[in-house]
Amino acid sequence: MGKQIPIPIRGLYGMIDVTDVTEGGPPSGALAQALLDGGARVLQLRMKHGGAGAMLAVLAELRGVCGDRALLIVNDRLDVALAGGADGVHLGQDDLALADARRQVPPGFVIGISTHNEAQAAAAIADGADYLGFGPIFPTSSKDRPDPVVGVARLAAVCAASRVPVVAIGGITLAAVPSLVAAGAAAVAMISAIHQAPDPVAAAGQVSAAFGVR
Amino acid sequence: MGKQIPIPIRGLYGMIDVTDVTEGGPPSGALAQALLDGGARVLQLRMKHGGAGAMLAVLAELRGVCGDRALLIVNDRLDVALAGGADGVHLGQDDLALADARRQVPPGFVIGISTHNEAQAAAAIADGADYLGFGPIFPTSSKDRPDPVVGVARLAAVCAASRVPVVAIGGITLAAVPSLVAAGAAAVAMISAIHQAPDPVAAAGQVSAAFGVR
Repeated sequence: MGKQIPIPIRGLYGMIDVTDVTEGGPPSGALAQALLDGGARVLQLRMKHGGAGAMLAVLAELRGVCGDRALLIVNDRLDVALAGGADGVHLGQDDLALADARRQVPPGFVIGISTHNEAQAAAAIADGADYLGFGPIFPTSSKDRPDPVVGVARLAAVCAASRVPVVAIGGITLAAVPSLVAAGAAAVAMISAIHQAPDPVAAAGQVSAAFGVR
Repeated sequence: MGKQIPIPIRGLYGMIDVTDVTEGGPPSGALAQALLDGGARVLQLRMKHGGAGAMLAVLAELRGVCGDRALLIVNDRLDVALAGGADGVHLGQDDLALADARRQVPPGFVIGISTHNEAQAAAAIADGADYLGFGPIFPTSSKDRPDPVVGVARLAAVCAASRVPVVAIGGITLAAVPSLVAAGAAAVAMISAIHQAPDPVAAAGQVSAAFGVR
């Protein structure tokens, strides 16, 4: 809470979804390298299936690729994040509570919270989140049961009220990025728009450039 | 490692499988009560689906039922166990490594390890497990990809070599319990033989009695 994040969360917030990867995408290490080459300085590992051991193996691979050039954040599994030497954990509204997580982590450990409306965002900030996810900004097919779309205007209001970085997420295309920069987002999390781009490094680089990163 | 478990692991090792519960079994609180009434003094919560928040809610319900009369052990999710005030965690071979888990927990926190052969059992003991699961003793349909059946003779050998309690698991019927007591098992984990019994309290009580508990 209020401490300095070792690497600023700004620009492209890279997502490594191993479910996605196993369904025909590039291997997670190659995807991580592409995101880093495109300027991402934070990577979040999501792995809905597979045990903690498998997650730790991917985490080690990602650390090998990014070294200390990027924050490594683990989705949901705080125990895996701590065991694997990740820099932080990302928690959804149905995951561990922020206070419960904070009690388990060392100083400097980053905790991000997914939020889907103004009340959740305000609560996460009050509880000491290091950054917020906010969305879905646009309609998305990445989640089975998406929360209601929030849109750019509500993103701008949340960003204006937040003293921690806000990561916009949900259905974000390359074309939409400038509007999210203008709304005050610190970063954007994009999955399909990067992963399915003909040139993921170029797509990631375009996002980074829109934020003035690199 | 080597510390005293606050409540001995002996007799019936109660399993609360919420997947099972949601598929038409009794609610988890009622099942926990039946297991306690039948003499179980340790309950393990398994919940393969559902997030950490849902798991914490069930854990709180179980704590309400058992108070400090039984150890509450959480399968796999160490972070949930710590957040929810469980007494311990149970780790499979594909979960967190024991040493990684031990670093995250306070003194007195119980860590059990699932083992499926002599080498895994020896490693778990050497690494400081507080108890072992060992099995499957008999063929079982409870797991999608069961490990090879180990049988009673190998259970006896593992029990003889173990300085921590060994919990026999896998396809155990009421009729088989005396042979497992004779083999030196400290406890038995049974799912269908208890949960599907006409009178689960009586079935649990029969197991407890075989171990001289209550």
